Amino acid sequence: MAKRIEGVLSPVVTPFKRDLTPDPERYVRHCKWLLAHGCAGLAVFGTNSEANSLSVDERMMLLEALVQGGVPAAKLMPGTGMCALTDSVRLTAHAVKLGCAGVLMLPPFYYKGVSDEGLYRNFAEVIERVADPRLQVYLYHIPPVAQVPISLALIERLLKAYPGAVAGIKDSSGDWNNTKAVLEAFGKSGFDVFAGSEVFLLPNMRAGGKGCITATGNVNPAAINRVYENWKGTDADALQAGITATRAIVQKYPMMAALKAIIAHFARDPDWATVRPPLVELTPEQQRSLALELTSSGFEMPGLAG
Amino acid sequence: MAKRIEGVLSPVVTPFKRDLTPDPERYVRHCKWLLAHGCAGLAVFGTNSEANSLSVDERMMLLEALVQGGVPAAKLMPGTGMCALTDSVRLTAHAVKLGCAGVLMLPPFYYKGVSDEGLYRNFAEVIERVADPRLQVYLYHIPPVAQVPISLALIERLLKAYPGAVAGIKDSSGDWNNTKAVLEAFGKSGFDVFAGSEVFLLPNMRAGGKGCITATGNVNPAAINRVYENWKGTDADALQAGITATRAIVQKYPMMAALKAIIAHFARDPDWATVRPPLVELTPEQQRSLALELTSSGFEMPGLAG
Repeated sequence: MAKRIEGVLSPVVTPFKRDLTPDPERYVRHCKWLLAHGCAGLAVFGTNSEANSLSVDERMMLLEALVQGGVPAAKLMPGTGMCALTDSVRLTAHAVKLGCAGVLMLPPFYYKGVSDEGLYRNFAEVIERVADPRLQVYLYHIPPVAQVPISLALIERLLKAYPGAVAGIKDSSGDWNNTKAVLEAFGKSGFDVFAGSEVFLLPNMRAGGKGCITATGNVNPAAINRVYENWKGTDADALQAGITATRAIVQKYPMMAALKAIIAHFARDPDWATVRPPLVELTPEQQRSLALELTSSGFEMPGLAG
Repeated sequence: MAKRIEGVLSPVVTPFKRDLTPDPERYVRHCKWLLAHGCAGLAVFGTNSEANSLSVDERMMLLEALVQGGVPAAKLMPGTGMCALTDSVRLTAHAVKLGCAGVLMLPPFYYKGVSDEGLYRNFAEVIERVADPRLQVYLYHIPPVAQVPISLALIERLLKAYPGAVAGIKDSSGDWNNTKAVLEAFGKSGFDVFAGSEVFLLPNMRAGGKGCITATGNVNPAAINRVYENWKGTDADALQAGITATRAIVQKYPMMAALKAIIAHFARDPDWATVRPPLVELTPEQQRSLALELTSSGFEMPGLAG
């Protein structure tokens, strides 16, 4: 088994052309920039990737474009958890076949209040049907959006049944107490815990976690990676304060539209701001004030503009 | 323009074989039984159909199986609203091409707290891209599950922009005050309001609505249709009390598993009880007590057992 990804992962934003079709060329370019500027891996097709605004075929096309474009599959952790079991199986098998390091799996998120038994069956069916020893599943706990949580009892049951396949979790609950509880329960069982925001990166590393998978990794990967690289250092808290402050600026705006607006600004490529419905771009006024505030804070994205 | 469907519609439950693949044969048979026993139309691929547990290809295969199996497309109102715009367009265009009476469209339901502007763009893009004068869109308002509501302001804007295409709504809010507000605002503009449960069928008819689209229409269509047919009659309230009482029995159990268990029982076909994860079948004990309570109440499904 290859060594698992640790460090800073970005849920890569998905560029669209003006007609709202995905743009593989900008996508490959941004992924390479991220890997060159601090990302250890790319959690493509995450929440901030507008992944659920893409069809299964669009995701598969984009993933193949990345690999063909020279992004190493060993750096990729695509989101493959769908509402439909058959879609999750198809995407997961495709990712494993391409050699991806792992997959990040949302629970099926349409029905609310479903039982752990039903969620267990969902993940178990995917693992059984994909039936590939290379499969590494990272569970995606994001109750504020999916509204379907992944409980400690569910993790325990999955880890017991599939110790080789269940590799870790992204905790996007925004609740450090939950992350801590997961770390305490499973952190020493080869279960890799990633904070869902860089705000919790330092606490996560100090408690035995493996890094973070964070939206703002799309624009601020180098600084976030410095916290990861120096978490044992004397300046760790100061570095953490810096990335938390940058996130606070971005978070004043709707996150996905803001990330794309930042890339559009620093890449001098206005079309990057395009989002698919139901999301909406920032207004020109919002774009200006976000760029101004970031620039004033010393923020930059070196090498982004072609 | 053909006359629109009015009356009782069933969000048809989707039968699965033991290997969890959809079963077109049982599906066609159940759809024909529903149309022969009181359903004016079939809202296939609704919430209670486990539609979001099906891939796009599985939905298209099942819809074609219905039409090829002799279910009139003019009676069909398939669910075609997906998280991904491209999926919604593909399913909607497919349904229109097959001659379906209309489509029932969920808003994209992954992101929460999205703006009316973003939802408007989603529906508008689907209507513009399908670009077929036969398209009749019924909006699907089900905030308890989708968690993304369809506001009165959104309906107003869509009706104004696409008066020929925006045909009505299924209101599954469970909140009669919302249904009433929609009826008062748009009920006289050729906007057809369907209650999302037969519990509100009589009030909906009295306030200018066009019927109901209800889960229990899968098992109790004749009695529900009697309320629809006799809503002006002196015994309407008594008939309504009857169907409300039957629903109360079913609602003691998880709805979709219960509906399938009822069909399995009265069709003497145990495999009908199969559900896809994340749903879970009723326990044998639950199945027995549900069947017993229904039978004791005088409930029956004539002609279901082959």
